[in-house]
Formats: sequence, structure tokens, C-alpha cells
Amino acid sequence: MTSEQDPSSWISRRRLLGSAGAAGAAGLVAGGAAGAYAAEAAREQPKPLTAVGATAVPFHGKRQAGITTPPQAHCHLVAFDLAPGADRKAAAALLRRWSRTAQQLTAGEAPPDDTGIALDAGPSSLTVTFGFGRTFFGKAGLADQLPEALAPLPDFSSDALDAKRSNGDLWIQIGANDALVAFHALRALQRETGGTVRLRWQMNGFNRTPGATDRPMTTRNLMGQLDGTNNPKPADEDFERRIFVPDRPATGQPAWMAGGSYAVVRRIRMLLDSWDHLSLERQEKVIGRRKSDGAPLSGGTETTPVRLDKVNKDGALAIGGAAHVRVAAPASNQGAAMLRRPFSYHDGFRDDGAPDAGLLFIAWQADPMKGFVPVQRKLDLGDDLSRFLRHEASALFAVPGGCAPGEYVGQALLEG
Amino acid sequence: MTSEQDPSSWISRRRLLGSAGAAGAAGLVAGGAAGAYAAEAAREQPKPLTAVGATAVPFHGKRQAGITTPPQAHCHLVAFDLAPGADRKAAAALLRRWSRTAQQLTAGEAPPDDTGIALDAGPSSLTVTFGFGRTFFGKAGLADQLPEALAPLPDFSSDALDAKRSNGDLWIQIGANDALVAFHALRALQRETGGTVRLRWQMNGFNRTPGATDRPMTTRNLMGQLDGTNNPKPADEDFERRIFVPDRPATGQPAWMAGGSYAVVRRIRMLLDSWDHLSLERQEKVIGRRKSDGAPLSGGTETTPVRLDKVNKDGALAIGGAAHVRVAAPASNQGAAMLRRPFSYHDGFRDDGAPDAGLLFIAWQADPMKGFVPVQRKLDLGDDLSRFLRHEASALFAVPGGCAPGEYVGQALLEG
Repeated sequence: MTSEQDPSSWISRRRLLGSAGAAGAAGLVAGGAAGAYAAEAAREQPKPLTAVGATAVPFHGKRQAGITTPPQAHCHLVAFDLAPGADRKAAAALLRRWSRTAQQLTAGEAPPDDTGIALDAGPSSLTVTFGFGRTFFGKAGLADQLPEALAPLPDFSSDALDAKRSNGDLWIQIGANDALVAFHALRALQRETGGTVRLRWQMNGFNRTPGATDRPMTTRNLMGQLDGTNNPKPADEDFERRIFVPDRPATGQPAWMAGGSYAVVRRIRMLLDSWDHLSLERQEKVIGRRKSDGAPLSGGTETTPVRLDKVNKDGALAIGGAAHVRVAAPASNQGAAMLRRPFSYHDGFRDDGAPDAGLLFIAWQADPMKGFVPVQRKLDLGDDLSRFLRHEASALFAVPGGCAPGEYVGQALLEG
Repeated sequence: MTSEQDPSSWISRRRLLGSAGAAGAAGLVAGGAAGAYAAEAAREQPKPLTAVGATAVPFHGKRQAGITTPPQAHCHLVAFDLAPGADRKAAAALLRRWSRTAQQLTAGEAPPDDTGIALDAGPSSLTVTFGFGRTFFGKAGLADQLPEALAPLPDFSSDALDAKRSNGDLWIQIGANDALVAFHALRALQRETGGTVRLRWQMNGFNRTPGATDRPMTTRNLMGQLDGTNNPKPADEDFERRIFVPDRPATGQPAWMAGGSYAVVRRIRMLLDSWDHLSLERQEKVIGRRKSDGAPLSGGTETTPVRLDKVNKDGALAIGGAAHVRVAAPASNQGAAMLRRPFSYHDGFRDDGAPDAGLLFIAWQADPMKGFVPVQRKLDLGDDLSRFLRHEASALFAVPGGCAPGEYVGQALLEG
């Protein structure tokens, strides 16, 4: 076996790419335009690795990556259940293996016996985020560590949930700006499971490719709406408090959740055929924002605060009583706020000919009872948008803080 | 309605982006690295549109785009059947609508009453390619125009085809480097169908994101192999003759196929769990190339011609008798060659826990009997790789030449 055949040489190769990326990402020029097939000469010349591929997001840190990381172009969400007989110790060993592999992958390195799917690619902003579902704690003998905040989400009248695609003992969120890097990570983490867990459900999502738009933060969803405009901003005074459990968790929050967050995951199918038949004007009234630029119908630009009391010349509210932005606004929900970090999904078409497409809604908050739950209660009853949506799956996970080198995610829970 | 609310202003916006792309793509600098959420200030600043978004592939031309265009990061394949009662005239009107919409979309413009999903995005190398299946011709009263080359593909012993996801009267291949731009095109083309056609099947695929790797042409598939190394090259003397029907079609090729090509589409599931359990050495012997860099086991680099007669010191063939590259090589198939332009797919996991993932194999040739058919006959019987593959769907389409402004794709067939 030559050195080039030795998988360890792949590791060096990928590590090299990772380092080059860290050092030189900002100055790289994007590859030239396409048009016809490149000539023979072009085949031999390397294409430049741009920031899309070269960017690495550190795995280690106080917080897990994939929460405040800008949403990537691709995601895999995957939930597992503990296999019968798997205990706390087996779960701890799995989380240790997973954390080690995630660290390697996010640095652009290949684990041993790698599938090779991500060979040649930079880390592509890969993040891997681990969470624990309510059902995990009893099975792992950790019932006393179950956070109050993991209480089951209430039933909502508009829910039509598929139990098989809901909940789960363990959850992984994988995000990357390259589809093969994301799939590679999914496979690499799956092969670490051994007999400890079994696949429960898995979903794939997407967002804009970096560089496809010059719009700053917000992406569009499959209804054509800008999504995330009213998200809490890291610069907000109360951002940390709203999104993350404090370093010294308050009453009801176990100590192992210090620096963690809670993820609400909802698969929300959009009734796009009905939605697309609405006029632009009607769509904008349902949302309460202009479609073109996301500006609230109360005036201004996308980032102008929504004025819920603004009245038009004709005496009607500029933003109607059941408009989505009104019902979802923190002002309508005692200040409840969450960091929404959604991906779109499209799994082809259903038997009825409608697109099986919509939003993998992922919302982050320090306490679901002060984030998702009160807002969704309100939306469930009085949101004009809800008749174009079907909540088809739901899950809630406790996502612990990040780990330092040599540690693993969830260690304080599993060895606490 | 203000001018910003007027959908026509979106058109200008998108047109502007398209022009900027055409002029300035090569010089654009990739967006800076990511890391944590951008601060408030960054939200207000436009991110640069890179070549990924700014590149436009012209719709009009002698050939349809999407054949020799570098494979994009995302694809949608969709097949339709003519609705009962829809005739040649209705099909002609549909192809005219589709061509007009495809031209607008590929230029980064929005059609009237647009869904808005691609707002803010550049054309992102969008291509839209139209084809006709064998079953179209009888239904449309055009049986006399059926090309001999559209004869049904033979049965292969390893086929396990799903009829519902195979064949079809009409076919569209959509490719783009942004997932939302691709989905937008799919929806925009679907809404043009009126009552003329009904959806038959639809599949989604992906390749590397441009900039995620510095490797020139070839991408990797989900087995981790470089794919497309031995493709015919545009610089090859016989490239045109092998891939495209000549301007003056020979016997058996109808005149309306001048400048066209035939697309073989196969959904090939990969048995990844079995494959990933093979050692690297075994995988490389099955393929006949090194995984790391695609070099043939007969020596050299990725682009070194394969030496099928090379014998190792131990007397064994360097490339085994049933290695994939040997069985698929033009030298083993009377020079048969096709332009493979595949996408990977991943539709989650099957009920048996195996990944529902593999290759949307798309092969282009002037005559399937001198391209796909003889090669697949050989692979079907003696390819070491075949036991890791399941051909689950199959289709063959006649893809006419491109059209000039004011014309539409298929006009020579539908009005000939």
C-alpha cells in the first residue's frame, strides 16, 4: 500500500485544507463563471477553494456550535432511541465517540476507516449539535436529572403529528454548506452508534447557498417570505438570557444544562398550492410584511420595528388583527422570544400531487415555556397563516453546553 | 400599491443582479468567514454575491443548456404525462410557455405572479432542459416522428424498477447552485402546466457546492468515489458526434432532433452499509481506481489513461477482470461512450434502516445503442460493483436541440 493509498494521508490532506481555510478564507476569489464545459486544460487546474468550503466552525467551546452559527445551506436532523439494554454507561461512551468524531469532521479531518465522501472538500462550516429528549432520562437511569423545561409540549389544535417522526431519546443536528460534507458527517456519526441506539427518524433541509444572494442574514422560505427578520439579535441586551441557560442555572434547571439551550423542532408542511393562489396583496396581509423586502406593513424597512398600533388612512390597522407578525410578536406574548434557525425541506410530492415541502422549524430558547410554547399557543388560535401550514412532527431536546478539548458533550449529565 | 410592492420591481431587481453577475463574476471576492452570528452591524451590510449566485447560463442556443454545463449543486428531475384529451397543440402551447418561463428564470428574472422564492438571489447557474419520452409521441399524434433511438431500454438482470418512478411523456431537468433557485424554477414550471399534463414522478439530487473543493471537474458520489473521470471531453475529436445528434441527422434520426441528445436517467440506490464495510483495498479493487485521487490501479494520476493489460509483479492484473472501470471502459465496449452527468440523492432512510441514497445517473449520448445500452449490458453481467447497486427507476428521453429567441424547445417536432 503506497502512502497515497493510506487513509492517514487523506487526513493530512483534509487537515491541510482546513488550515488553509482558516488562514486565507477572506482573501479567496470565487471561481470563474461557468458556461460550457471547461476545456481539457481547465480540468487539470485546481479550482479555488472559497470561504464556502474553507470556513471551519470550532467544535469546542462554551456553547455547542449550530445554534448561533449562521444557518448553513444543508442540514440533516436525526433522532435515535436507546436500544433495549443500553444504559447510562453505553450512552456516555457513545457521546464520547460522537464528540470525538464531530470534532474531527468539523476541523475538516477524516475519522479512521473513513467513507471518503468528504475527501477534497473543506470543512464547509460543518457543525454537529447534540441533544437529549425527555424519554432519554428514564431509560438511562437519569430520571432525577430530567429538566422541568423538557415537559412535553402541549397539544395544539392545528397539530397533525406523526409519532414516528416526533420526539426521540437523542438528537443530532448536522449543518454544512456542502451537501456531501453534511452527508459524510451523518454517515460517520451513524457508524459510531454500534448497538447503543437505533435510528428513529431523519430529515433533510436546506437554505440558500452562501454567495447566491447579497442579502445579509435572513433567508427566504418556500412561501417566498423572508424568515427570521424579527429574531433576537446577539447584540440585544437580553439575548444570552433568552437563548441560553445561565452558567449558574436557576431553580428547575439542572446544573448540567449550564450554557445549554432547548431546541424545539417542528416539521411544518406548507400548503403551497393554496398559498401560491393568493394574490401578493393577500399574502402580505396574512404575514404583515411586504414580500419583496420584508418591511412591515406599518412602514419602514425590513429591520424597522413593527408598529402594531399603526392605522391606515381608511381607519384599518396597517397590520391586521390576525396577521402572523402581530400574533407572533414578543409584544403580543409577554416578551416571549426564541431564536428561530429554520431550514426548508422538499421531499418530492405526495400521493395527492401536493408538494411534500415546508419548513424544518428549529427554535432555540433558554426555556420553551418562555419561548415557543406561549407563541405557538397564540398562533394556534388566531394566526391567519396557520391555515396554510400543517405541523406534522414535533420534538423538544435539551441541548447541553459545549465541551472543552478532551471532554465530550453531555459529560456533566452522564458522569455527573 | 407602492413601486416596491409591485412585482415588476422584483423583475428589475433580479435582472440587475443577473447583469452584474455577467459582468463582474470573475472578480468577486467570496464572503468572509462565518464563526458566530454576525453582529447587528453585519446584518445591515449586504453580503457579496459571488460567482455561485451571479453566474447565468444562457437558455437560448444551438444546444439546450444542462448537458455540457458543469453539474450544479442541486437538481430536480420531474416527469409528466399528458392529461387525457391533451393533444399536440396543447403540448406545443405548454412547451412555448415552459420555454418562455425557463428563459426568464435562467436570466434571473421573475415570471408574472411569481412565488418570490428566488427573490434576492442571482441566477445561480440555473439550467432547464426539456425532453420527450417514447409514450409522448402516440398520445400527441406524432407517432411518425418517434425516433428509433427511443426504443425501450432492454431489461437488465439486476433491474428492480419501479414503474411509477420510471419513464414519462415529458421530462424536465432543473439544475442550479442554490436550492431555493432550483425549487423556485420547479414551482414556476409546474404552475405553467395548466391541465395539459399531470405529474408522474419527481426526484431531487445534489453535487458539491462550488468552492467547497479545489478539485477541478469530478465530484464524489456517496460511495466516496470520484465520478466522471473517464467522461468524454469536449476537446475530444469525436465528442460532438458521440454526444449530440448532428445538424443533418443520419438515417433513423428525425430532422427535429438536430443538435439534440438522448438522456438515460436511472435512479441507482447504493447499498452503502455493505459498501462501507469493505476495506479500502477491496473497494479500490472493485472500482479499479484509488479512492483518494481517482488514479487507475494501473498507475499514474486521475487523468492517466487506464491500462487494462497492466500486470502486477505477482502476475495478477492490476485492474481485475470484473473491476468497474474495466467493464465500463470504451475499450471493452467497441468504443461506446456517454457523457455521465450524475447527481447524488438522499431521501432519508428506508423502513429497513438502510439509507435511501445513491445516484441519479444521467447519461447523454447521440444514440443510446452506442452509449448506455452496450455498457450497461456488460456491467449487468460482470461488474464487481453491481452487487452494491440497485437500479430502481429508469427512463429514456429525446432531448431536442436548443432554441433561438422567439422560438421554443421542441418547436420543430410540435409544428414540423
